[in-house]
Formats: sequence, C-alpha cells, structure tokens
Amino acid sequence: MHLIDESRASFVSGSLNTDFPLQNLPYGVFSTSSTGRRIGVAIGDFVLDIAALQATEFAVEAPAHLFAQTTLNALAGEGRGTWTRIRRQLADLLEQGSSFSGSAAANICLVPRASITLHLPFDIGGFTDFYCSEHHASRCSRIIRGSAGGLPPQWQHLPIAYNGRASSVVVSGTPLRRPHGQSLTRDGSSVRWGPTQALDFELELGAFVGPGSALGKPVPLALAGEQIFGYVLLNDWSARDIQRFESAPLGPFQGKAFGTSISAWVVTPDALNYFRSPVEQPAVASYLTFDHGGSATNFDISLSVSLQPKGGTRSIVAKTSPTFMSWSFEQLIAHHTIGGCNLRTGDLIGSGTLSGPKPEQRACLLEMTFDGTQPLLLADGVHRAYLEDFDSVTFTGAGTTKSGQRIGFGSLEGLVLPSFQTEHQ
Amino acid sequence: MHLIDESRASFVSGSLNTDFPLQNLPYGVFSTSSTGRRIGVAIGDFVLDIAALQATEFAVEAPAHLFAQTTLNALAGEGRGTWTRIRRQLADLLEQGSSFSGSAAANICLVPRASITLHLPFDIGGFTDFYCSEHHASRCSRIIRGSAGGLPPQWQHLPIAYNGRASSVVVSGTPLRRPHGQSLTRDGSSVRWGPTQALDFELELGAFVGPGSALGKPVPLALAGEQIFGYVLLNDWSARDIQRFESAPLGPFQGKAFGTSISAWVVTPDALNYFRSPVEQPAVASYLTFDHGGSATNFDISLSVSLQPKGGTRSIVAKTSPTFMSWSFEQLIAHHTIGGCNLRTGDLIGSGTLSGPKPEQRACLLEMTFDGTQPLLLADGVHRAYLEDFDSVTFTGAGTTKSGQRIGFGSLEGLVLPSFQTEHQ
Repeated sequence: MHLIDESRASFVSGSLNTDFPLQNLPYGVFSTSSTGRRIGVAIGDFVLDIAALQATEFAVEAPAHLFAQTTLNALAGEGRGTWTRIRRQLADLLEQGSSFSGSAAANICLVPRASITLHLPFDIGGFTDFYCSEHHASRCSRIIRGSAGGLPPQWQHLPIAYNGRASSVVVSGTPLRRPHGQSLTRDGSSVRWGPTQALDFELELGAFVGPGSALGKPVPLALAGEQIFGYVLLNDWSARDIQRFESAPLGPFQGKAFGTSISAWVVTPDALNYFRSPVEQPAVASYLTFDHGGSATNFDISLSVSLQPKGGTRSIVAKTSPTFMSWSFEQLIAHHTIGGCNLRTGDLIGSGTLSGPKPEQRACLLEMTFDGTQPLLLADGVHRAYLEDFDSVTFTGAGTTKSGQRIGFGSLEGLVLPSFQTEHQ
Repeated sequence: MHLIDESRASFVSGSLNTDFPLQNLPYGVFSTSSTGRRIGVAIGDFVLDIAALQATEFAVEAPAHLFAQTTLNALAGEGRGTWTRIRRQLADLLEQGSSFSGSAAANICLVPRASITLHLPFDIGGFTDFYCSEHHASRCSRIIRGSAGGLPPQWQHLPIAYNGRASSVVVSGTPLRRPHGQSLTRDGSSVRWGPTQALDFELELGAFVGPGSALGKPVPLALAGEQIFGYVLLNDWSARDIQRFESAPLGPFQGKAFGTSISAWVVTPDALNYFRSPVEQPAVASYLTFDHGGSATNFDISLSVSLQPKGGTRSIVAKTSPTFMSWSFEQLIAHHTIGGCNLRTGDLIGSGTLSGPKPEQRACLLEMTFDGTQPLLLADGVHRAYLEDFDSVTFTGAGTTKSGQRIGFGSLEGLVLPSFQTEHQ
C-alpha cells in the first residue's frame, strides 16, 4: 500500500479542496476533440495524459505497452507491484516544485478536465453484484414480503450475490432509456407489458478486478486485496415491477439488464486506505476469516444521491456510506472464487445497495418511498414515487482525511430518457 | 438460409455416416502440434484448416481478417450474408469431384481430426441461461418445494432466465474440480462447508450470438434469427446443495459458477434447418409473437447423456430433445433485448435443462434420482445419487434427415476431478 503523505501538495491548479488532490490520482480513459481514447490520471482541474507523458523525458518507468491502450485492462492486469511503482513516480512528478512542474512537457501533458470526454474505463467481461447491506436486505424484505419478511437464512453465513449483465455497463453521463417489460398490475390480477412504472436507482460501490485468477484455484482471503485495482461509484438501475415479476426462482434479469452506470474515475485502494474501517461480522466459515487476527474492513467515506427533475432544482435524497456493508470487498472475492470460479482482469464487483439504518440512509427509491406508496417530497414541491422521464440522478462519494484532505470519485450522472418505441407497442 | 442438397456428398473420408457430412460444416478452433490456434470446419474424419486454405488458389471469398483469428468472434460478427456466402463456397470445395479434391492444397488443408486439439471457439463476454423446459421446471419445483410446487406465475408469459458466469465456460474435454461451498446439512439443522455432495450435470443447447445489438434497441422477433451464429451442446454443471442454500432471493451463483462446458464444434442454423419443428405455446405478449402467422420453432434432434465411472462401463442415462423447449431461441433473443439490454458478438445463450415428460427424458440427476434419494442403477451394478470423483459425463446430439443423413455436434465430454485443497480445509 502506498499512502501519499498529506503534507505534500500538487502544483496543478484546482488540486486543493477537490476530489482529486495529489493523494488521490485516480485513473480514467478520456478523449479530446483531437485525440482518440487514452489513459489519464485526474489531478485538480486537469487530467495527466499518460500516453503523452511517456513520449517525454518525464516518462514513468513502466512496461511500454501499458499506456498505449484504450482501456485500463492491461494496467490492471499487471498487479500491485507495478501499480505502486507508477503511483510513486506520478506523485513525484505532480508535486509542487518538481522538475516537471512548469516544464514544456507539463504544458502538453496536462489537459483541462473541462475539455475532455470520459469513457468506460475497462473492457468488462463479468459483472457480479452482491447484496451486502443488512439494512437494504431487511427493508426490501419487509416491503416486498410484508412484516414477516426477514433476512434470508444464508445471510449470516456468506455474502449473497448474482451475476449481473456486463454488456450494458455504461460510463457516467450516458443517458438510459426507460425499459419495457412484463409485470403484474398493482392489484396482481393481470400481466401488463410496456414501459416500467417503477424505475429506480441503487447506490453501490464497485470494484474492478486486477490480475484475475485461474479456474479451480480459490483466492485466499489474505491475497484477495491484491486482486482489487480500484473502485467506482455504481448505479444499479432497476425496474422494480419487471424485476418482481421475473425474479423467482432464478433472480433478477431484465429488471436490471437495461443498464448499469459507473463513475469514470477509478480510485485506487492506495488512495482509499485513509478511510479503512473495520466491519463487524458474525462468526463465518474459515475461508472468510483472516488467519492472523486481521479484520475485514471497508471505507468510511460519504456517499450521496441527488435527484433533479427536468428544469427543476436538485435535491439531495440520500446520504450513506460503504461502512454499511456486512462484508469487505476482500471477502467478496474470497467467496466468489471459493468454488473454483475464475476472475478475469476488468471484472466488476458491486457491493449491493449501500443503505444504512437511518431514514436518510436509504439508498434506493424502493426503500425511500416504500415501493412508491409514500412519495418523496423534493424541492419546489415536486413529488417522486419512482423516477420520471428526464429525471437526472447524481451520485457523489468522497472521504476526508484527518488533516482535512478530500479524496473522492467525482460524480456519477445518469439521465432517464423516455422509453423507446417498438414495433409492437 | 442455405440447405446443402442431400444428394451431394464430400470426397473427404469418413464424411458418410458421421456427425460431420457435407451438409453440416460446423466451425471450430483447433491447434496441432505444429500450429497455434486457427479456425477450421469439421468434415468427416478431418478438419479443413481455413487459414491454410486462404493461402491457396482455392481461398474462399471473404474479408481477409476473418480467418486470421484465434476465435470465431470476427466471423460471427459479420452476419448471415457473409456466413451463407462462405458456406456455399466451402460446400463446393468439399464436394466429390471438385477441383479441390485430390489437389495438393487439399492435402495441406485437410488435417486428421485425430491429431488436433480443440479450443474454446469464442471469446465469451456474456452467458445467459434460460429455463425453457416445462418438464424440468415443474419436476424441480416438486422435488425442491414438495407437491405444492408448481410453475412460477410468470412461466406462461415469458422465458425465465438468469445471468450465468461467462469466465468459467470451458470447451469439451476440460476436466472440472468438484467445488467447495456452503450448504445446509440434509436435516437442515446446520450449515456445512466443504466439497459439494450433490454434483450434477444439466443437458442444454447453447446458441452463440452473431452481430449483436445496441443498448436501448430491442431486437424484433422477426430479426432475432439473424443474431444466431450457431449452436453447441452445453453442460451447466451444478452443485445442488450449494445452489439451494444460496439461491433465494437472487438466484443461483456459486452453485453454477465453477464451470460450464460446451461442445467444440459450432453447428450453424443452416445445418440444423432440416430439423425445424414448431413449438406449442400459450398466448404471449406481442413482442414474443410473429406478426405474419409465423410460428416459433425448435429442432427435432436427439440428445443423449451417458455416464462412465472410472474404469467402468459407460451407461446411457438420458435421451431427450430441444423440442421440449417452450420457447424458440429467437424468442429468447427478443425477450433478452426487449428492455434495451444489448447483446455482444460471442455471447452465449443457454436453453436450460432439456427434460421431457418421460422418465428417460430427465436431463439432470436432480430429476433422475429425486435429489439423490433414488439412486440410478448404472452398468456393472454401480449406483449414482450424484456424480462421484472421476465420473465422466458425455453428451451427444444429432438429427437425421428424411434421407437418413446424420448432422450432429460430436460429443461434449467432462471429467469430474476431486475437490481442490484449500488453505482452510
């Protein structure tokens, strides 16, 4: 792990009081009006174009092919040794007073973030979504199955998950169309088909897999952290009516397949280590327990959801945290591979909806509005049961270090477009 | 569609009374002791090395890059026009009396199948597994939930599916290790963890996606067939105890993530069109209905499962057919995309277990042995409740045309290895 000392600062403008100080250095894939996709690191109001940097005398020491890419897969596949070596060099370059600061090369390699387009950072082969918040699971169970609903029997023993749909993972800013599907009418008397009437978001944290693992070779918990290249905010858009009709016995499918959004900047474990916070857990199977008294940890950072109707005022509707996960990401990886399932570089692993115990910590509308029956009051006197067309949903996430330094994800934005027309509508 | 006239025959030896006559021409990816992976077409006892063919005067007319590949993704991405054009040319080359027969080029390009190694034919981004046999669904429901079990309420309205794990799809012949996981003890009183005690196979048909579709653009039923490059046999290995403990409410995950096997030869819709057979269905939503009186069809071909203990005799334990699907593959694609979910070239779509109404048509051990409580009697007086270590499972599949021509998949083989050792066992 490589924490960058908090006393150090960058010469790049906008790098104080930002999500992207010298201590963060998240990776992304961007293009400009004059370049194709390339790999960069966010710093203040700029992005450091690493492909351009590698053509200068300030090039970082790294395998030549790593940054001549349009995704982060090759870099993520290298493993922690390489990640840390590059991080040290980038921090040195970007620090106040470095030989790079004020050089002609810096002028070329630092591109204003306002001028770039961000792209999906990975070629994603697999997307696995877990279900790690007890508050989310128990509230959903009460809402869907009535007061008799409780946690599933396996809850205390393992992190529950399902395979999501990787093809429809999109980057922040990609608008999504309201999906069609079949569902029961409210009174349950008949089946309707058409645009969903219960479009929801779910606030999650996502982790990208680094080197990956071989089929038939479980990743021991003690080594699971080596598999995590970095984290993003994740919006697991859900059509609750479609999901409810289809889900038993094989789980959600079309209710979640129409799109999953992620934030564009991938924040490394090195940057989030300031915020490690232990997870309290029941006694669990040995493969989910640290041998030498280590404890499972998550990140004590602040996450928020805001909602803005078309032309209206933005309202913050939830404030929550990854500390509400009952499992660490390392445990998710140990469980994912314990049966021999292999992980591939660029696989995405979601935390599940990060709801906490308090009303303002409910991280989806299903919970906030009790399945649409108790609409939310937004600014300007607007109400929302579920999302309406042209609603804009924004997630943010950041931690603040003891010395007041903010390290964050930027924002994850998504706009709801009206349903597509079909031949059969 | 391009049926090759049944009166035509190939000059290649072994191409009569085989799964691979001139009328089949399935694609695969193979290597030999002296070559890397390349694309070939099975014909009788040989494989036609298309990369080698393209360097001769008999080269087929096709985009230059299509066969300079180690997977079928580029070819599948081209679409039906190209597929049919190439098929016509290959049939002409391989026919008795062609100028290719007896040429020096034929000698170079035809490689004995006995000397090749077959590889996974596609780079698979997504694996979606449906649940299309009413006989399988209703039997499983009775076995797992008792006599009160019936079909899920959405059964009559849509094809049920879940996202499977694409990373662990392997080609025929790849042995799989018995997976570890957590499950309830038989009496339900406690949770155990260790190697599965209920390892099963499931006989399915799989379809590979050709061109793919865009996010937010449903594929209309009438165009869904254009998305299907070809079919394989598929073994959806399942650990029933692990699956049962984990599956509610989000569906199967680790119980099926340790491996899915597919046959190596991808049989095209052109070759299977001899066997089209209508599917009887309830009234369904408009997007699943043909506009102009067309009907959903599947393939009336014969599938079999056999089981061979280590050093023992092979016993056929099931004989079934894709006609037991309640939906066509075209309907699966229309449903998969109706919410806007995109398909990618090389995505794999499974039919679900192809069980029929008769006892010998049960296509997994869960059904055959009533969850292990009524063990099967195999040859040599051996019994099986679920699979034991070193059991070998073989699927075959083929149709026979009216004139007696056989068109098939070859075989799908899988060997069960003992569970891996873990640090924590």
